[in-house]
Amino acid sequence: MPSALILIADGTEEMEFTIVYDTLVRAGVKVTSVLISPPSDTSRGDEAETDAAVRCSRGVRIVPDISQSQLGASSGKYDAIVIPGGLKGAETISQSSFIQVLVKSFHDSGKLVGMICAASLVAKTSRLPRQPLTSHPSVKEQLDKDFEYREDSVVTRLNRLPLPGTAFPFAFALVEKLCGAQKRSEVIGPMVFPPGTVL
Amino acid sequence: MPSALILIADGTEEMEFTIVYDTLVRAGVKVTSVLISPPSDTSRGDEAETDAAVRCSRGVRIVPDISQSQLGASSGKYDAIVIPGGLKGAETISQSSFIQVLVKSFHDSGKLVGMICAASLVAKTSRLPRQPLTSHPSVKEQLDKDFEYREDSVVTRLNRLPLPGTAFPFAFALVEKLCGAQKRSEVIGPMVFPPGTVL
Repeated sequence: MPSALILIADGTEEMEFTIVYDTLVRAGVKVTSVLISPPSDTSRGDEAETDAAVRCSRGVRIVPDISQSQLGASSGKYDAIVIPGGLKGAETISQSSFIQVLVKSFHDSGKLVGMICAASLVAKTSRLPRQPLTSHPSVKEQLDKDFEYREDSVVTRLNRLPLPGTAFPFAFALVEKLCGAQKRSEVIGPMVFPPGTVL
Repeated sequence: MPSALILIADGTEEMEFTIVYDTLVRAGVKVTSVLISPPSDTSRGDEAETDAAVRCSRGVRIVPDISQSQLGASSGKYDAIVIPGGLKGAETISQSSFIQVLVKSFHDSGKLVGMICAASLVAKTSRLPRQPLTSHPSVKEQLDKDFEYREDSVVTRLNRLPLPGTAFPFAFALVEKLCGAQKRSEVIGPMVFPPGTVL
């Protein structure tokens, strides 16, 4: 069973988080959400972290599965890392030195790294090499000098997308990479998209 | 500012809940999520209810805004009620006598009632009059005797849909009814859907 980490912080875009988490679970991927707190946030003790809910960008409160320190050294066993957008959440995650090291190590070992919407900022702060990339338009200016910026909905190999309008295609692209094209079709069918939907 | 209730229970489909909640907030609707507990669930004290997270159908844990008893008699001030699917959650909600009375009163006073996926069961348990309706295919047999069952993606006036593939069109239909067609366009733009997406 493939496994994936999905990061979450105060201000994460809740649709982007939930669509990816749910769709990967439907595909049989073991998904673990990880709370990333700002460095200055001393109000969250480590034990309290995973019981405390994150407040997402439009007010939905989500409880992460584990904290950053609970992830710790076990991060190497996961097959993919996915980072949702939401500007405030993406800023917190992109400024985390723990995440910068983690994303670079996933990238360098050829594992799947998925960044969506404003989360493409993490590609820059993690000092990933120059390559094709897209993002939410609001953070384009911070990225187009260091990467081959594109306006496409989906750019592999890092799979960054302007979301949440493309959250479903993004999630299905992850499913295909982790589980194959057959599984992608199996997951899409029962979700009953309207005829003509671009996925 | 229009206001909407969105119901949530253990087993609610997290994409359907989150896409509706988030999209309505983007449209300027004041959204309040309400925890519905099974009648036999004595483990949740009332005070504890809103601090405790619901475990949704694919494992995402969401903290509701208020409990059923916190809603109480104030329910009349809301303009709409929305019920997401997820079979287990929809069953809990459809069996709640509190919700059956609430939905019938919203319906009879001409307020917006939105039910998606398996949540169409609530139309039956609330004894709404015979009218056009759709649902997730898995609960069709429980509904097609009492309603004019249709296979369409969207059926008004009750706005029930087979989800989550139609969660976005459903959410935008709610926005248009609560806030007008102009607001619908304003909300869709920044969400950056791929060209050709059916909404």
